[in-house]
Amino acid sequence: MQKKNNSKLRIIPLGGLEAIGMNITAFEYGDSIIVVDCGLAFPEDDMYGIDCCVPVITYLQDNIEKVKGFFVTHGHEDHIGAFPYVLLEVNAPIYSTRLTNALIEHKLEEHNLLDKVRRKVVHYGQHINAGDFRVEFIKTNHSIQDAAALAIYSPAGIVVHTGDFKVDYTPVYGDAIDLQRFGELGKKGVLALMCDSTNAERPGFTMTESGIGRVFENIFSDHKKQRIIVATFASNVDRVQQVINTAYKFGRKVVVEGRSMVNIITIASELGYLDIPDNTLIDEDLMKNYPDEKMVLITTGSQGEPLAALSRMAAGTHKKVKITPNDLIVFSSNPIPGNEKAVSRIINELYRKSADVIFQDTHVSGHACQEELKLIYSLLQPKYSIPIHGEFKHRKAQAHLAAGLGLDKDHILMLSSGDVLEIDEDGAEVVGTVPHGTVFVDGLGIGDVGNIVMRDRQHLAEDGIIIVVLTLESGSGQLLAGPDIVSRGFVYVRESESLMEEAQQVVNETVGRLVDRHVTDWGKIKSGIRDDLGDFVWKKTKRRPMLIPIIMEV
Amino acid sequence: MQKKNNSKLRIIPLGGLEAIGMNITAFEYGDSIIVVDCGLAFPEDDMYGIDCCVPVITYLQDNIEKVKGFFVTHGHEDHIGAFPYVLLEVNAPIYSTRLTNALIEHKLEEHNLLDKVRRKVVHYGQHINAGDFRVEFIKTNHSIQDAAALAIYSPAGIVVHTGDFKVDYTPVYGDAIDLQRFGELGKKGVLALMCDSTNAERPGFTMTESGIGRVFENIFSDHKKQRIIVATFASNVDRVQQVINTAYKFGRKVVVEGRSMVNIITIASELGYLDIPDNTLIDEDLMKNYPDEKMVLITTGSQGEPLAALSRMAAGTHKKVKITPNDLIVFSSNPIPGNEKAVSRIINELYRKSADVIFQDTHVSGHACQEELKLIYSLLQPKYSIPIHGEFKHRKAQAHLAAGLGLDKDHILMLSSGDVLEIDEDGAEVVGTVPHGTVFVDGLGIGDVGNIVMRDRQHLAEDGIIIVVLTLESGSGQLLAGPDIVSRGFVYVRESESLMEEAQQVVNETVGRLVDRHVTDWGKIKSGIRDDLGDFVWKKTKRRPMLIPIIMEV
Repeated sequence: MQKKNNSKLRIIPLGGLEAIGMNITAFEYGDSIIVVDCGLAFPEDDMYGIDCCVPVITYLQDNIEKVKGFFVTHGHEDHIGAFPYVLLEVNAPIYSTRLTNALIEHKLEEHNLLDKVRRKVVHYGQHINAGDFRVEFIKTNHSIQDAAALAIYSPAGIVVHTGDFKVDYTPVYGDAIDLQRFGELGKKGVLALMCDSTNAERPGFTMTESGIGRVFENIFSDHKKQRIIVATFASNVDRVQQVINTAYKFGRKVVVEGRSMVNIITIASELGYLDIPDNTLIDEDLMKNYPDEKMVLITTGSQGEPLAALSRMAAGTHKKVKITPNDLIVFSSNPIPGNEKAVSRIINELYRKSADVIFQDTHVSGHACQEELKLIYSLLQPKYSIPIHGEFKHRKAQAHLAAGLGLDKDHILMLSSGDVLEIDEDGAEVVGTVPHGTVFVDGLGIGDVGNIVMRDRQHLAEDGIIIVVLTLESGSGQLLAGPDIVSRGFVYVRESESLMEEAQQVVNETVGRLVDRHVTDWGKIKSGIRDDLGDFVWKKTKRRPMLIPIIMEV
Repeated sequence: MQKKNNSKLRIIPLGGLEAIGMNITAFEYGDSIIVVDCGLAFPEDDMYGIDCCVPVITYLQDNIEKVKGFFVTHGHEDHIGAFPYVLLEVNAPIYSTRLTNALIEHKLEEHNLLDKVRRKVVHYGQHINAGDFRVEFIKTNHSIQDAAALAIYSPAGIVVHTGDFKVDYTPVYGDAIDLQRFGELGKKGVLALMCDSTNAERPGFTMTESGIGRVFENIFSDHKKQRIIVATFASNVDRVQQVINTAYKFGRKVVVEGRSMVNIITIASELGYLDIPDNTLIDEDLMKNYPDEKMVLITTGSQGEPLAALSRMAAGTHKKVKITPNDLIVFSSNPIPGNEKAVSRIINELYRKSADVIFQDTHVSGHACQEELKLIYSLLQPKYSIPIHGEFKHRKAQAHLAAGLGLDKDHILMLSSGDVLEIDEDGAEVVGTVPHGTVFVDGLGIGDVGNIVMRDRQHLAEDGIIIVVLTLESGSGQLLAGPDIVSRGFVYVRESESLMEEAQQVVNETVGRLVDRHVTDWGKIKSGIRDDLGDFVWKKTKRRPMLIPIIMEV
């Protein structure tokens, strides 16, 4: 890898820096582009009807011949969820560790893309050549197994991208993070560190996942007579393992609830990431053969997702599981920001059914706290820092921390999505921007819901719609039928009869006046209806429903 | 007050127990009803277009001749906000302390109700006779001044209702909570305690409000060169007082931003609850005459409310205040559950403008933690406990705490809204329910948005609407015009032209087929359109927009 003339390394985050999720970063050198991660974002509250958000990838499409491959840090949705959409436009090989690859394959299969995309399983320590780049996968710890940091070798220098990570000296499965390799790389000289900021506001050290095993043992030992239901993230296989271990130790059978939980447990146990003792897992239909004190349920829904198994249990609409006062529900999770209220709602519903609930000190994070971040900085001693992953305030906290470790403030780079950072040993500078943004996925539609449609949905949601229909005679412009008024989401017509009668009156007068004046410009008739009806409705209700006049000609 | 034959005290919470807010409780004995508080609730995320929620008060309307008056614990919206709506139906005198009364009057004035409602200012220690009841107002502490607990004397015994409260030995204004009176009442014998549960999950003791003064002093002393912007709750007059005191001490001028902040400061200083040194408060237009280091802004928007002053500053749309890197924004508040994400969004925006932000350890709660609750229980030693205020899980935590203090579990009553609790020294039992629930207020409409309208709004928000219009000849049923298709919030038509063309084709075929068959039952034509178009759209998009066929007859 020789340094080309006038060629610098370009780092282009295409998403992930404005909102949580949608992590995708392009690295470009000469004629080569590699892409790290390809995540989706879950919709915000005001993105009505949207299933998920995926990144605008115009830059990759425009430079498709340069794209050598996707390199994936781990198997969470905000790092792999956009593949089914992005690969339709930019089909390049995907490199990832074993479990990550299995999760990507599961996703591609669901979208009938499995045959169309090349994939390669990478081992820790392995190096992949990709054009002017070489990428090494380094063992880290996270709330999903097989997470990797990436050392990206380019002629301009080495960039280390941590992905999401924590330092766990005693993980439940597999090895601890490869701190030695971080040390070695630091000695070689690291141009830039792109490091997870999620917990950068939190002091101290994130507790080890295996500590949760002891928490479960205490809970099981304190609640020997009750049925125990544990809600957690489906993808946290280590957590599931610890529930299963504890269940086995206490002689309980385990039932798995929720589609994504069943999926992941199937994949993880097939690959050997999950060790389930014989006769421990049973089918939910066999539950009735066992008393409460012999049962553990592991379920999805720890974030209060309205359609997940736990929500249905709490609401009393789950087909197989009915909550009773002899149930103990353990939330082995913290609410993700924005989900606090939904989680509280489920807890309240469970309490109302007189069940017991435990929701504190039963979870550890998968992200590094301040002392871990300091450790990584101290091992790598990068020339530049590019805080990633987390909200702006979290990235800012990492920037503050890096400065506290002595890093030159000018060498801490707060990027925005779309920024083109040119960097090498001689300097680092944002030299421009490329297109970036969010594509809405709604059902089968990718991108057909844009800002106009979203504004309409918001308008409809706020105040509903009033439709005014009338038929005019072609030529003469005589009113043949209507105007008829139909409303939805505005007022309950039966209870607001007089309001709707008056509205009808207003429209009749407007249309009558315009027709009598032989106005044949439909635009004028429509805007007359909109103005007069809009004024009337606002005066009477202080609302602005969407007004749609439709004119037919016979 | 003599005990009537077969007459027990009835306690009927009409709201406040299912969701936060909308606090209103009826007490009935013989021919007398008194009502404690009359609050609104803020809408949940899925209550599209709703401004606020007020309680169903059918029971009060049906027994209007019995209603002797409203007794109000303090001036927060969730305790007084429903008055403008409830008084329209049930006009009875309102009894409250001085600041509470002023805030109610301000509200009634806005709704042109001031002349129509009797009000009486009550002093702490004063007793009000109301039919078979007598009500005593007792000094407490809370995040608004003039908060009161109520001792409700009835022939069946004494009920103490704490309202929202905390124990503050060193409040900023006025006296500490009247613990002596709680002790005296306990000695007399308390039938039931209805006690605030909001912080019942939190161990320890809520810190004194005056401690925040020292926090401000440290912040002001550490940031002598910056402009300081403090965001807090408008109603927390003591907090505002402490900001003003600190500003004065450090020689800074104060500008107040946000309508509700200006309102409350005006009311509180007129009544003497706020002491503003001369020449401290200045008009925002004079701000430009002072350098940053001489200015403090006190603003609304600490909960991330999108229209509040701070949000507009953060978004760069505030007319008078532009955020600069020399600004320090202090959030003197914690996010109310559900607002976490909105608050984070503002903080991120402020950081992006390179301002400094402090949002931790700058707030104390207005609600009692566990040790305070234990204190109140120990002073009153009630026979029965009825946990109120807070989510179910908070009330449950108080129940747990009361049991831990030795209260008989059967004497801890977890009520639901609408429950009719009959209680006296001989026992307590829920004997029935009365109508209860939520009335949506949307603009000027009270209750005209019900479940059907709300479901329509949710449907419209999810997937938008498709309208199909056609004109038929009367009698013959011949198609004269259309079918025309109009959609909103479904897809962006210009980008989905072929989809809409195919949809048109589907509708043409359906209508053609039915008209050819001389189907004149409009219901059949409409359902034919709905079925065929619905199937087509689902197959193509996996969406279910609202489908409205409209037929006109000429």
